[in-house]
Amino acid sequence: MQWVKVLGGAAGAAALLGLGIILGHFAIPKGADPAPSASASQDLDPEILEVVMGLLSASRIRENLRELSREPHPASSRQDEALVQLLLQHWQDPESGLDSVETSSYEVLLSFPSPEQPNRVAIVGPAGNISFSCRQSKENLTGEQGGPDVLPPYAAYAPPGTPQGLLVYANRGSEEDFKELQAQGIRLNGTIALTRYGGVGRGAKAVNAAKHQVAGVLVYTDPADINDGHSLPNETFPHSWHLPPSGVERGSYYEYFGDPLTPYLPAKPSSFRLDPDTAPGFPPIPIQPIGFEDAQVLLCNLQGPPAPAAWQGALGCDYRLGPGFQPGGMFADSQVNMSVYNRLELRNSSNVLGVIRGAAEPDRYVLYGNHRDSWVHGAVDPSSGTAVLLELSRVLGTLVKKGIWRPRRSIVFASWGAEEFGLIGSTEFTEEFSSKLRERAVAYVNVDISVFANATLRAQGTPPVQSVLFSAAKQISAPGPGGLSIYDNWLRYFNRSSPAYGLVPSLGSLGAGSDYAPFIHFLGISSMDIAYTYDRSKTSARIYPTYHTAFDTFGYVDKFVDPGFGSHQAVARTAGSVLLRLSDSLFLPLNVSDYSETLRSFLQAAQQHLGAQLEGEGISLAPLVTAVGKFEREAVALSRHISALQKGTFDPLQVRMLNDQLMLLERAFLNPRAFPEERYYSHVLWAPRHSSVATFPGLANACARALNTDPGSAAWAEVRRQLSIVVAALEGAAATLRPVADL
Amino acid sequence: MQWVKVLGGAAGAAALLGLGIILGHFAIPKGADPAPSASASQDLDPEILEVVMGLLSASRIRENLRELSREPHPASSRQDEALVQLLLQHWQDPESGLDSVETSSYEVLLSFPSPEQPNRVAIVGPAGNISFSCRQSKENLTGEQGGPDVLPPYAAYAPPGTPQGLLVYANRGSEEDFKELQAQGIRLNGTIALTRYGGVGRGAKAVNAAKHQVAGVLVYTDPADINDGHSLPNETFPHSWHLPPSGVERGSYYEYFGDPLTPYLPAKPSSFRLDPDTAPGFPPIPIQPIGFEDAQVLLCNLQGPPAPAAWQGALGCDYRLGPGFQPGGMFADSQVNMSVYNRLELRNSSNVLGVIRGAAEPDRYVLYGNHRDSWVHGAVDPSSGTAVLLELSRVLGTLVKKGIWRPRRSIVFASWGAEEFGLIGSTEFTEEFSSKLRERAVAYVNVDISVFANATLRAQGTPPVQSVLFSAAKQISAPGPGGLSIYDNWLRYFNRSSPAYGLVPSLGSLGAGSDYAPFIHFLGISSMDIAYTYDRSKTSARIYPTYHTAFDTFGYVDKFVDPGFGSHQAVARTAGSVLLRLSDSLFLPLNVSDYSETLRSFLQAAQQHLGAQLEGEGISLAPLVTAVGKFEREAVALSRHISALQKGTFDPLQVRMLNDQLMLLERAFLNPRAFPEERYYSHVLWAPRHSSVATFPGLANACARALNTDPGSAAWAEVRRQLSIVVAALEGAAATLRPVADL
Repeated sequence: MQWVKVLGGAAGAAALLGLGIILGHFAIPKGADPAPSASASQDLDPEILEVVMGLLSASRIRENLRELSREPHPASSRQDEALVQLLLQHWQDPESGLDSVETSSYEVLLSFPSPEQPNRVAIVGPAGNISFSCRQSKENLTGEQGGPDVLPPYAAYAPPGTPQGLLVYANRGSEEDFKELQAQGIRLNGTIALTRYGGVGRGAKAVNAAKHQVAGVLVYTDPADINDGHSLPNETFPHSWHLPPSGVERGSYYEYFGDPLTPYLPAKPSSFRLDPDTAPGFPPIPIQPIGFEDAQVLLCNLQGPPAPAAWQGALGCDYRLGPGFQPGGMFADSQVNMSVYNRLELRNSSNVLGVIRGAAEPDRYVLYGNHRDSWVHGAVDPSSGTAVLLELSRVLGTLVKKGIWRPRRSIVFASWGAEEFGLIGSTEFTEEFSSKLRERAVAYVNVDISVFANATLRAQGTPPVQSVLFSAAKQISAPGPGGLSIYDNWLRYFNRSSPAYGLVPSLGSLGAGSDYAPFIHFLGISSMDIAYTYDRSKTSARIYPTYHTAFDTFGYVDKFVDPGFGSHQAVARTAGSVLLRLSDSLFLPLNVSDYSETLRSFLQAAQQHLGAQLEGEGISLAPLVTAVGKFEREAVALSRHISALQKGTFDPLQVRMLNDQLMLLERAFLNPRAFPEERYYSHVLWAPRHSSVATFPGLANACARALNTDPGSAAWAEVRRQLSIVVAALEGAAATLRPVADL
Repeated sequence: MQWVKVLGGAAGAAALLGLGIILGHFAIPKGADPAPSASASQDLDPEILEVVMGLLSASRIRENLRELSREPHPASSRQDEALVQLLLQHWQDPESGLDSVETSSYEVLLSFPSPEQPNRVAIVGPAGNISFSCRQSKENLTGEQGGPDVLPPYAAYAPPGTPQGLLVYANRGSEEDFKELQAQGIRLNGTIALTRYGGVGRGAKAVNAAKHQVAGVLVYTDPADINDGHSLPNETFPHSWHLPPSGVERGSYYEYFGDPLTPYLPAKPSSFRLDPDTAPGFPPIPIQPIGFEDAQVLLCNLQGPPAPAAWQGALGCDYRLGPGFQPGGMFADSQVNMSVYNRLELRNSSNVLGVIRGAAEPDRYVLYGNHRDSWVHGAVDPSSGTAVLLELSRVLGTLVKKGIWRPRRSIVFASWGAEEFGLIGSTEFTEEFSSKLRERAVAYVNVDISVFANATLRAQGTPPVQSVLFSAAKQISAPGPGGLSIYDNWLRYFNRSSPAYGLVPSLGSLGAGSDYAPFIHFLGISSMDIAYTYDRSKTSARIYPTYHTAFDTFGYVDKFVDPGFGSHQAVARTAGSVLLRLSDSLFLPLNVSDYSETLRSFLQAAQQHLGAQLEGEGISLAPLVTAVGKFEREAVALSRHISALQKGTFDPLQVRMLNDQLMLLERAFLNPRAFPEERYYSHVLWAPRHSSVATFPGLANACARALNTDPGSAAWAEVRRQLSIVVAALEGAAATLRPVADL
């Protein structure tokens, strides 16, 4: 069987032997009804886990990826819909499909370049003559960058317009960058600002620029930021994994997430929609991305004072600030003209949802998802994740169809639409089923880009998922030589010193980079994101070099990102093990007491960095100290209760009650009224923090805003309010951990 | 035993026999550990129900009431705190107490008259002489209306001030009333407006008056509105149950509910507080209540045009509008002077909470509560409810302490503080434990005033509680002759034709009149309010006549409201039976499919009364029709599933999953973003409706506001938004009723 070969170093001889016995055992026909009966005390079977690990095939993931990335498939395109059909076909397969599958479609606002009027960036001489035009599509290096289905580079949701003005260089387009230009006396009014990717969000570059009366913004990827400085054609793809000079990162420039016209409502055809002309969150001025070969022409011909050292890049010239081009040069007295013809369009975008019904607790959902839409071929983003999703659902579906296994809880596999435009499919799903998901979702596992690079596992998540990730990672071999477990390999690359456990791999926290965002921030569902990633000692690239370009192709992955697909397999096994543990363990493997470390560290940061400032206003952190202490004590007591229950006799209702406490803890941190200006963000611990103090975000943000305001200001009142909000959330959360008959 | 005597006509001979056998059976000592073991399949035992019905004693309720209403006990007073101790003593009693008891205190903003400077209303002659003063305390008719602990009449939260001006009569102080005065050419600027209770909320009278530059407001109870016209001393208490001429209704004039300074946060000492000077919801101008004997002096001496016929009352004169007094009369050229010295004070107010731990599902809470604070002695309001609460907790506590019985789920008894000031204790409780309650509360049963009068049961609640109320009411005999069940008696007084069931007693819907409000509106917990009430063919009184006056005493109840306390006992039995059924039934007796009738009637009202208006704007109700239909179908399917489950074999987890669907349905109607201007109101079906169309409140209110605005107005956009909000809620609710492994 295929899996035996694939298993390779991933399982020891003993495991192999066990595996053979199990398969032999399971292969015996069980009679007319092969489904195992629902058992209230069903628990994770380590042998099933071994079987699943063994069956997850690197070569099948590779074939999935080839199929998924064959054509460009941006959201709502014909090819995207074809992949919907592909997923349906896989998940309805009689041999390896799921119990039930459905698609659900939303009518959402997307943004596309005009097919008739291509966006254009040109240098226009004083007589109106065009002396230079930026490339309108990428160089067709592998035969995959041409054709009508390759979306030309554009900034999704940037408004149309044809601004023209003198060029300035504005570094990353942050508020500070524009202030620096202002400080240097650069007149910004009416200019075109050339910015580089990174530092701040895409849309923020236009927002910041518009505040200074800039007329249009260009954005490019500096080779210093993505290629470790390499920029020559023979140093870049297809000769290496580096970004070619003509590569352009696409992306959404929308500020929020979810369908822009239907916040908090599912984007059904009949739903109330905001007026697109006044809906918030779109870039205020035209913005257009270009490749670094074009950026070089623009930037290396600028006049004006030299840019600060930190603003210099790897285009092979000294960056200057402008405005305008060098008087003696080929573009003397020229301006830059942008012609942007993007259009907003209401399009249908589909999610595909497949369910394996839980045997004992079908009303408890472990969700596992990834988006399906790409910008171009999207081999890495998102198809590397979808390839894993298909392999994992195939393996589990096969066991279910054969009657060998059925999880204790339901598993919901999801293929989201229109993530690239702003996590739209997943957000609409959470809006449509908010009540059901809040009540019943155990956790959400996201595997978007499954392999950025092949050095190490990288995971983001809330504290309760740390334990299940560690358990999974300890039992699986890392790809490559060395014989380390994924856990031990991970520990070498990302680690922290935990007061409770000593040196452990460090989990990142969840921002809004992929479809986990609505689950954790809007609904308070414990979430995680899993991938393989870089050796950071070897690259400082912002992200993998062909990200969101037409060079993110199957060949790129196969040749440079993960030859042999061992890292893909490692991610499939890790995520698969996590999924099995969450869906099949009698006691939910969510260690809620791991929240205590986070709360304690947030508290210490507040005391250390904000304590004096607060004290000056007569604001005491004592209630917060009390609340954190209470949480810690209740968490410890609950852990003891769990241990006692596991050792003694218990009935299934007792376990259910305990599991409900574990599942719902994350919900106790939700407060939909805490941050009214932050759309969807309701989790008081993980809302966006606009302050360098690593503490409770509401408190940190309010303190940052109150600084230098008068003692009786509204800003200081907001600090007090935010402090009370987090104290109430922690007290409320601690109350949910107490013995359930106590108040 | 006492209960045998009390049982009387309430149980038949067969039941009595059964009861004897059961008690004999239970009386046999069970050995060292008398607690029955937790059983996952424990179900309601009809014999225990009979025992409880039998043990609930009218004479004990009477004794409780005598004790509870012995002294005036307004919120946070010494006597209120003494009752906290009394409750603790009862609930900690070793023979009849509960498993655990605790008090929890909040620091809340209350409002009291100044003890040093009594409020005063006087007629001031042109020379500044006082020609008449309203009574500052009530006539001491029964020896209970005097003394330092009787709060003099005042309007809680009315601001201090000493306005003086010509008197006008403004009927009930509604917006329309002031517009009518304006239409009649009455100059309102700087006047004092005399209003009568009823029609609009207390505080609204001052809000409406202030819009017309009125300087101060007086409010009195017209004998036409409370005494069926009777007003003479010998027709009123202590000679009958009617309000004496010196009686004055106190009350809260605060617009919202909950502690005014800590909306959405528990009012702990450290909590963030609004500035009381700018916190919203307080009356904008001084307002003071007076008795009708004083109102008669003022009103019967007014000059000006005669008041409209509908404004006339029973004070024995023709009401005129003013401004000012008759020129030939004793108050010619006089003005009215109000001196209001109310003070806002931060006070500690306590809740008392007692728990009977559930045997099988301790994490499911059936809550039963009433407030403890009164305005004066508060024999009816709230002690008639608290007397029932104490008797019910005694009976259940006794069974638990004796080891005879323990409910399947936990029962939480609550004695709320500071309800009279705006449901403060209960609201703070829901804020402090919002997560826990949202997750775990099965239902909230409120018995505030248990007996308004002794004619019939009256209940308010959301549709799912109808079935359990009916089941209880059918099994209990109504007090008085006739031998009817409470149900059949109820049916005679309040009924409606149900499409599903034919003629049934009609349940009222839940406003914000008592402590159920935060449970249903803020947390979406199925709630009900139970009482005995009037024969409406015999009285048109707004409420029982001594409501919120110093005449609401034990003697009043004992002599006029419920001699013999049979109605109190009937309420105890009804509420007790409901409580037992909710806490002990294996399958939760919440019939969620009864929501279908409500939704269908709301839909029909929308189609009939708003359809044309909406169609004119191109707004279709089709999505609402679809959503209601979907809800109905899923509810029917769920009912079939329940029946099938009840007939077949099932494991406790299956029942738990089903019960979770039933318990949580009400939560699916919550949308904290639906009505941002309505504090706490999140339930999209039961938010306040300011329109006469009996349909979905958000839609009704938005349509009312959009009427006569331009087609593209923000008001019409809000209509569309509200329609989408209710459609999404119904679709989401229907989704929670589907088989749990379906999406």
